[in-house]
Amino acid sequence: MQQDAPFHGLWRNARLATMRPGEGNALGIVEHGAVAMRDGRIVFAGPEAALPSAEAAEVVDCGGRWITPGLIDCHTHLVHGGHRAAEFEQRLAGASYEEIARAGGGILGTVRATRAAGEDGLIATALPRLDALIAEGVTMVEVKSGYGLTLDAERAQLRAARALEGARSVSVRTSFLGAHAVPPEYRGDAEGYVSLLCEEMLPALHAEGLVDAVDAFAETIAFTPAQVARLFRAARALGLPVKLHADQLSDGGGAALAAQWGALSADHLEHANEAGVAAMARAGTVAVLLPGAFYMLRESVAPLVALMRQHGVPMAVATDCNPGTSPMTSILLAMNMAATLFRLTVEECLLGTTREAARALGRLDEVGTLEAGKWCDLAIWNVETPAELVYRLGFNPLHRRVRRGQ
Amino acid sequence: MQQDAPFHGLWRNARLATMRPGEGNALGIVEHGAVAMRDGRIVFAGPEAALPSAEAAEVVDCGGRWITPGLIDCHTHLVHGGHRAAEFEQRLAGASYEEIARAGGGILGTVRATRAAGEDGLIATALPRLDALIAEGVTMVEVKSGYGLTLDAERAQLRAARALEGARSVSVRTSFLGAHAVPPEYRGDAEGYVSLLCEEMLPALHAEGLVDAVDAFAETIAFTPAQVARLFRAARALGLPVKLHADQLSDGGGAALAAQWGALSADHLEHANEAGVAAMARAGTVAVLLPGAFYMLRESVAPLVALMRQHGVPMAVATDCNPGTSPMTSILLAMNMAATLFRLTVEECLLGTTREAARALGRLDEVGTLEAGKWCDLAIWNVETPAELVYRLGFNPLHRRVRRGQ
Ligand SMILES: [Zn+2]
Ligand SMILES: [Zn+2]
Repeated sequence: MQQDAPFHGLWRNARLATMRPGEGNALGIVEHGAVAMRDGRIVFAGPEAALPSAEAAEVVDCGGRWITPGLIDCHTHLVHGGHRAAEFEQRLAGASYEEIARAGGGILGTVRATRAAGEDGLIATALPRLDALIAEGVTMVEVKSGYGLTLDAERAQLRAARALEGARSVSVRTSFLGAHAVPPEYRGDAEGYVSLLCEEMLPALHAEGLVDAVDAFAETIAFTPAQVARLFRAARALGLPVKLHADQLSDGGGAALAAQWGALSADHLEHANEAGVAAMARAGTVAVLLPGAFYMLRESVAPLVALMRQHGVPMAVATDCNPGTSPMTSILLAMNMAATLFRLTVEECLLGTTREAARALGRLDEVGTLEAGKWCDLAIWNVETPAELVYRLGFNPLHRRVRRGQ
Repeated sequence: MQQDAPFHGLWRNARLATMRPGEGNALGIVEHGAVAMRDGRIVFAGPEAALPSAEAAEVVDCGGRWITPGLIDCHTHLVHGGHRAAEFEQRLAGASYEEIARAGGGILGTVRATRAAGEDGLIATALPRLDALIAEGVTMVEVKSGYGLTLDAERAQLRAARALEGARSVSVRTSFLGAHAVPPEYRGDAEGYVSLLCEEMLPALHAEGLVDAVDAFAETIAFTPAQVARLFRAARALGLPVKLHADQLSDGGGAALAAQWGALSADHLEHANEAGVAAMARAGTVAVLLPGAFYMLRESVAPLVALMRQHGVPMAVATDCNPGTSPMTSILLAMNMAATLFRLTVEECLLGTTREAARALGRLDEVGTLEAGKWCDLAIWNVETPAELVYRLGFNPLHRRVRRGQ
């Protein structure tokens, strides 16, 4: 390797979807483009003709292929014990949610399996799911806790999430979702559990460096707005950004609540109202759309995408990979479903798994677009047009993935 | 290799979903099972304890994994030129079907691209799609013509389909679908085109050994029942089995028409009526359900699955892989959609891509179940239960695929 070459890596003869705003088209397309890298970071991304130098330690001729930023899955529950295939089967055979819960299924079934798995078990079962995402060009993935619901079990989930970053070449962002459900130990005492979250679990896990953001499930079947506010106050005191599972099954004012706390994102939003959407726009809170859960639950009310567009709410798209309502490990499929079921445009889907997903994780300064200074996270595709990434169903046209220049 | 070992191959320490009827459960499950092979064919599939011999030239310990028959995708348009991603994008941006057709899109756009591609071009673009299916354990795939619509172009499509069998270890069954659309050259003269199909194209392509079955698209926007009957009469005269794209967009009596001609299958069937379903049951015609197209077209009327079940119509599930309405190359996703959108049970989905798919192709005598005498086509899975194959979205748990013992 020529250590004194101006670039450590150069990808040339490519077509770039830089996702940079203000390039005259929504995807920031550069035909005849090139990306140059030094120390894992982009030092140039633009027209090949404008390259300051063509010398590099390694030069890759992309043969006219498309390059996008590495994809970002900004909402997953990737780390969990067990699966819920039996429950899926029972539901198809006519069992009700109540019957399934009585038979030990539902979220508390996953809590039991997660507590039993241990950190190593959680890592082992998460890796194949992570590998499926990586195979589609994902370079950053958010992973939530929320199936442990005790200090030790939540710690194991978050430590497993952190360990994924060492096991694979991928960036992991963790969200502490202790407020996912009220654990059996606190049945009937959600307030007491929220106190535990605020006073013990969150401070301890934060002190261990395991928490990048704090998330909660605001819903009639989960936590009230007041309980979420208590948790968010505790997060703010620790200097942690917040996110919210909001208005998925009913309009609980979740969008406005998220906006009020300056949340990075409000996620799901099928039942969000217009005032909430407007508040999100003002707060810069990203709408993370999760069509996999909408599809699996056979919901009929879709998020108000036209309204979000009109108000200028940034929209991201993610898999919501979780064992109960979205056992999905394909970010490309999530994009197709966002288009097909929610009527996002192709451009919105592609921005939603790159730039806007980075924004939803508070990481737009370092990933999400092809721009000098950011990590050189690339996905190189065997497609003729970026639209193909959204259009196909169950087809993976990834040619090569690059993370931090490698 | 021990040439005189009783078996050429032995897969032991496995759990079998044989798909054999009459094993006490719908999937014909054998715990502690084994499959023995000789000359590419199954000579034993059952409890390991009942194996006549444990000697084999090659013994594979399956580590308790599940084995199903190799999966069968019994309805695809895998061989075609171009794609319709731009049209997908335009539709999302609000363009009407009419505007797209005027801009050269729609099926006739694919006809143009297919005619231009040539046989080699068709093979080259079909292979990545075929590889995606193969990667999920598919060992037999049906491929239709129908985007050429001239003798030469239909020949190129069918020859490309045949060539796939040489290029990969997979069985290909061809269906001549010249009656897919009226080509531009015959606009306003569907009768004339059907004459061409019956009198020239079908006999010539059959004589070249390119046609395993004859298919047609019965629909108000395509061919009338009388035109389909003419074509089916020609097929019968040549001794060829028939299939039918029936009742997809409207109730055109397609189910009854297919049954009347003893079709191997009637496919789509969203709008089939009860009399048609009953007739299919009597005729033994398989209902091939294609949820990918239902999903992409955002249809609201699902096939009458409960009625099919009640009448005892065999149900198969396929991708319908085609560039316009189902650019799907995942048979596992097709199963999930059949369950989620059409409410097939897990067992119906699994039988629908094995035993019933073989029946839909008239090949149940040689594939589709794990039974002595059939080809040793196996899919070996990293799953704890067969239900996982249906439950997950965009995840491929295939461990290994075996075709004809290899
Ligand atoms: Zn979630
Ligand atoms: Zn079709």
